[in-house]
Amino acid sequence: MNQRLEQQLSLLIELDRLKSVLRRTRVRSAEGRLENSAEHSWHVAMMALLMQEHANEPVEITKVVKMLLLHDIVEIDAGDTFVYDAQASKEQEEKELAAAHRLFGMLPQDQRQELFDVWQEFELAQSPEAKFAKALDRLIPMLLNYHNDGQSWVENEVSKSQVMQVNQKIEKGSQVLWDKAKSLIEEAVENGWLKN
Amino acid sequence: MNQRLEQQLSLLIELDRLKSVLRRTRVRSAEGRLENSAEHSWHVAMMALLMQEHANEPVEITKVVKMLLLHDIVEIDAGDTFVYDAQASKEQEEKELAAAHRLFGMLPQDQRQELFDVWQEFELAQSPEAKFAKALDRLIPMLLNYHNDGQSWVENEVSKSQVMQVNQKIEKGSQVLWDKAKSLIEEAVENGWLKN
Repeated sequence: MNQRLEQQLSLLIELDRLKSVLRRTRVRSAEGRLENSAEHSWHVAMMALLMQEHANEPVEITKVVKMLLLHDIVEIDAGDTFVYDAQASKEQEEKELAAAHRLFGMLPQDQRQELFDVWQEFELAQSPEAKFAKALDRLIPMLLNYHNDGQSWVENEVSKSQVMQVNQKIEKGSQVLWDKAKSLIEEAVENGWLKN
Repeated sequence: MNQRLEQQLSLLIELDRLKSVLRRTRVRSAEGRLENSAEHSWHVAMMALLMQEHANEPVEITKVVKMLLLHDIVEIDAGDTFVYDAQASKEQEEKELAAAHRLFGMLPQDQRQELFDVWQEFELAQSPEAKFAKALDRLIPMLLNYHNDGQSWVENEVSKSQVMQVNQKIEKGSQVLWDKAKSLIEEAVENGWLKN
């Protein structure tokens, strides 16, 4: 038996569970069901491939894509937290750290450390790659919402000031994308999708 | 207006539709609903990150991951074809080529060509990266099936000889993974999940 392979396969099968972690965004093409964190992770990784040129600083794209593929797997244990729920977000941190230890801990030692480090670098949001990846992760639900008549903002009664505050960090990763985000927010207010 | 960004955003929003393209594999953690091609693409890209060391030849992992993130987007127009449906697979090729031209055609010229080339390299299955990516794309539904009591084999009355024939190409990308696949197939036959 190939011990390394068996460890990798165990995690791979465990990751299947991310497909049942639901977010607040609805999938327009799929009759409005809630989006899950696995398909979100694919979409935002594709976004990185398409939009690398808009990062404020040069980024190593492999690392950005790795971060985005990995960033939500802790939700298998910790669940998804709505970005506009400030209290839950704090409590979430400890749960996610424990989840990272459990999940990456299923791997051979060398891989465990490497992937944990990538995950943690994303969470710390300090490196150019992490700042850009965070910017994409914040912008994509706004884009999907905007193209779905503001669905999740309306359903959850989100205000313009909440959206501005939570998403301003996009600017740290990409000025171009933050400019785009601000114009979407203005339109969303005009359309009555965001409370002013 | 940033013309390049607007083109990239148009494709990004269009890609949302891959979340409604359904496959034959069921998601065990999500009450057995069918898996969609977007979450599959995430899962198989994660598999590449975890299992790079099992490729027969050294591979450039960024290209493998790109291939796997992109490989199914043509299904937005062409739909998913069951791998054991040989007739449909032939007709599918033309539809997928047209879809690749339409979708990548939404991008700025330089990106259009780059991503089309990556997609085509995967389809041709000749480079070390494409052979390895194809191996992963074939193995992952077998693994999920195996861990779900042979669900899609049983539902679609698939035989051992079909599975052996369709999946033998795994060997071209990874001998290690093909050896694992063969042992799963033997067990699936013993368990009555595959017709002998």
